[in-house]
Amino acid sequence: MTVTSGSLRSRTDLCTAIETELTGLMGKRASVATTYGPDFTRLWAIAGENVLGGKFVRPLLLMETYDALYQGSSGQRETAISIAASIELLHYAFLLHDDVIDGDLVRRGHPNLIGSLLAEAGEIPRPDGALHWAQTGGILMGDMLLAATHQSFARVDLPHELRLRLLDLLEHTINETVAGEQLDVGLGDGIVAPELETILMMCGYKTATYTFELPLRAAAALAGADFAVENALATAGRHLGLAFQLQDDLLSTFGDPQRHGKDPYSDLREGKQTAIIAHARSTASWPDIEPFFGRPELNGAEADHVRRQLTDCGAEKFVQSLIAEQLQAFNDVLASAESQVPPNARNVLVDLAGQLEGRQS
Amino acid sequence: MTVTSGSLRSRTDLCTAIETELTGLMGKRASVATTYGPDFTRLWAIAGENVLGGKFVRPLLLMETYDALYQGSSGQRETAISIAASIELLHYAFLLHDDVIDGDLVRRGHPNLIGSLLAEAGEIPRPDGALHWAQTGGILMGDMLLAATHQSFARVDLPHELRLRLLDLLEHTINETVAGEQLDVGLGDGIVAPELETILMMCGYKTATYTFELPLRAAAALAGADFAVENALATAGRHLGLAFQLQDDLLSTFGDPQRHGKDPYSDLREGKQTAIIAHARSTASWPDIEPFFGRPELNGAEADHVRRQLTDCGAEKFVQSLIAEQLQAFNDVLASAESQVPPNARNVLVDLAGQLEGRQS
Repeated sequence: MTVTSGSLRSRTDLCTAIETELTGLMGKRASVATTYGPDFTRLWAIAGENVLGGKFVRPLLLMETYDALYQGSSGQRETAISIAASIELLHYAFLLHDDVIDGDLVRRGHPNLIGSLLAEAGEIPRPDGALHWAQTGGILMGDMLLAATHQSFARVDLPHELRLRLLDLLEHTINETVAGEQLDVGLGDGIVAPELETILMMCGYKTATYTFELPLRAAAALAGADFAVENALATAGRHLGLAFQLQDDLLSTFGDPQRHGKDPYSDLREGKQTAIIAHARSTASWPDIEPFFGRPELNGAEADHVRRQLTDCGAEKFVQSLIAEQLQAFNDVLASAESQVPPNARNVLVDLAGQLEGRQS
Repeated sequence: MTVTSGSLRSRTDLCTAIETELTGLMGKRASVATTYGPDFTRLWAIAGENVLGGKFVRPLLLMETYDALYQGSSGQRETAISIAASIELLHYAFLLHDDVIDGDLVRRGHPNLIGSLLAEAGEIPRPDGALHWAQTGGILMGDMLLAATHQSFARVDLPHELRLRLLDLLEHTINETVAGEQLDVGLGDGIVAPELETILMMCGYKTATYTFELPLRAAAALAGADFAVENALATAGRHLGLAFQLQDDLLSTFGDPQRHGKDPYSDLREGKQTAIIAHARSTASWPDIEPFFGRPELNGAEADHVRRQLTDCGAEKFVQSLIAEQLQAFNDVLASAESQVPPNARNVLVDLAGQLEGRQS
């Protein structure tokens, strides 16, 4: 996601600015937390480390788009950085609640907050007490970061209308992400029928909205861009977001766990209803896959067998074709808005799309 | 909590105004929810019924205090109602996450949101899938209501300073409530040592702050009251809040489940570390109580035995004396602020304190 031309600021400067803002947002709260004893303090310390260890995909997208769109000389850049950083907090809040819901203890090859709390709790008398304690930490930290995100949006010193516009965006984003999460869980729990259409809708809601649409729309609003520009970027961004999510599913199932850093085979073990599975279910190979799907004790050899079946039945290829479709739609939207969207802003997204190729993590 | 004098508006009018505001806040979102399918729509429908079925303790405290403090002729009354209603949403968000954390399915004698979702899910293939689905609904609805609370606070059309003051209050409240919840869970899971002092601190953080301090401080800020008045009310309110929480513990353990509407003996079954238990632990009766404490399969006869032991060892009386102490401190604070706090505002709290006597639910 390197901006290739026209931006006055390098990627490194942007990362530093976002990191400084996040350090401030988390540091202020971590310092207040010490009033409430060692366990509350520890919660903030772990969360702070994890937040600052992120890749800042969403804040960078917002800032690079803002810098590409903003035409004036001073503008709302400081506010944009504060909103960008708070979107990273929102991302982490969603991850925490997602990890609680999925029972995950690892993210990107390292213990997540829940895994860290569990390891530190050690042996305690009540059965499952340590896991309960750790998952409670995940719920509560997610709540506090969801609150922190709103605090940043609420405190911006902007004209009333623009502030309301950002608050609308945040509200829409949370609604849609939560609806996507509920669909995802409903699919996994067997409450919602695993139709391909439902699965694709879920991917869009759960990930594309907050990862692409929110930063792009916020950047456009803060830069004072026309609504047509905002809409073209957001629509293109949604297609790209769906492509990324579908590729995530491919990586989780077929990729190298050493590189993508997730629990290996966790999607298969959890019985996650992905587009891969939706396709496989419509093929003659399904009776050979189904007994292994959603089996918590799935071992490596069984998982390898399922992966081969998923490739052989054409599910891997099918999802690759879905990704290609989304990229085509992405290109079409950007092409048809060529006269409206400034080249630098287009380049931010085109560079991002370029990262899909050869992605391993 | 009837205002006995000076208020221009009756309790019924206040309830109607709060109900109307809550209907608007929930209705707008329930209507957006229909875009995302039947399960998301259902989540909002159940939450809407539950929110509107509440007793509005916190919003009423805010509005009665506001009306008692406000001296002018127009003021921020509409904003006060919006903030009051959003504090009810915050309360419900906390309850939802608390119920998820405690594994509770019943509240006030009726299925809570999780219990309703569980009952409606019916039989599904995945073991524990229905409970997982229902608890996920509790986490997600809590998130959305936490977001909705912040949206109300963020959108108020007030002078910048006053808006920031309310946002500070909300931030402080959430921090303290979450710290209290974490302490409570740490006590239950055996992570935190069950000292009486810790338990009392936990009660203050977890309940008194958002139930008493937040509505009282928000009312004072909105009414433009002196900070000395705000502080006296908030300090008195914290003592009262602690008294209510201690009485809640007494009711849960010794009260009639038909009247208080909770899972009977759930505190004993869950091994909840209350002031009652902290005292009992220091007596010679503890070896006879301990084997039953925190036993999930505790039956009615065993629970009756434990309750008798808790009375006989003096734990019930001890907690009654703690309540009396808090009420004394409450009266002392109000008395020493007599020249500053208007009589009507004092009466709101005094009437509320009166409800402690003979409380059954």
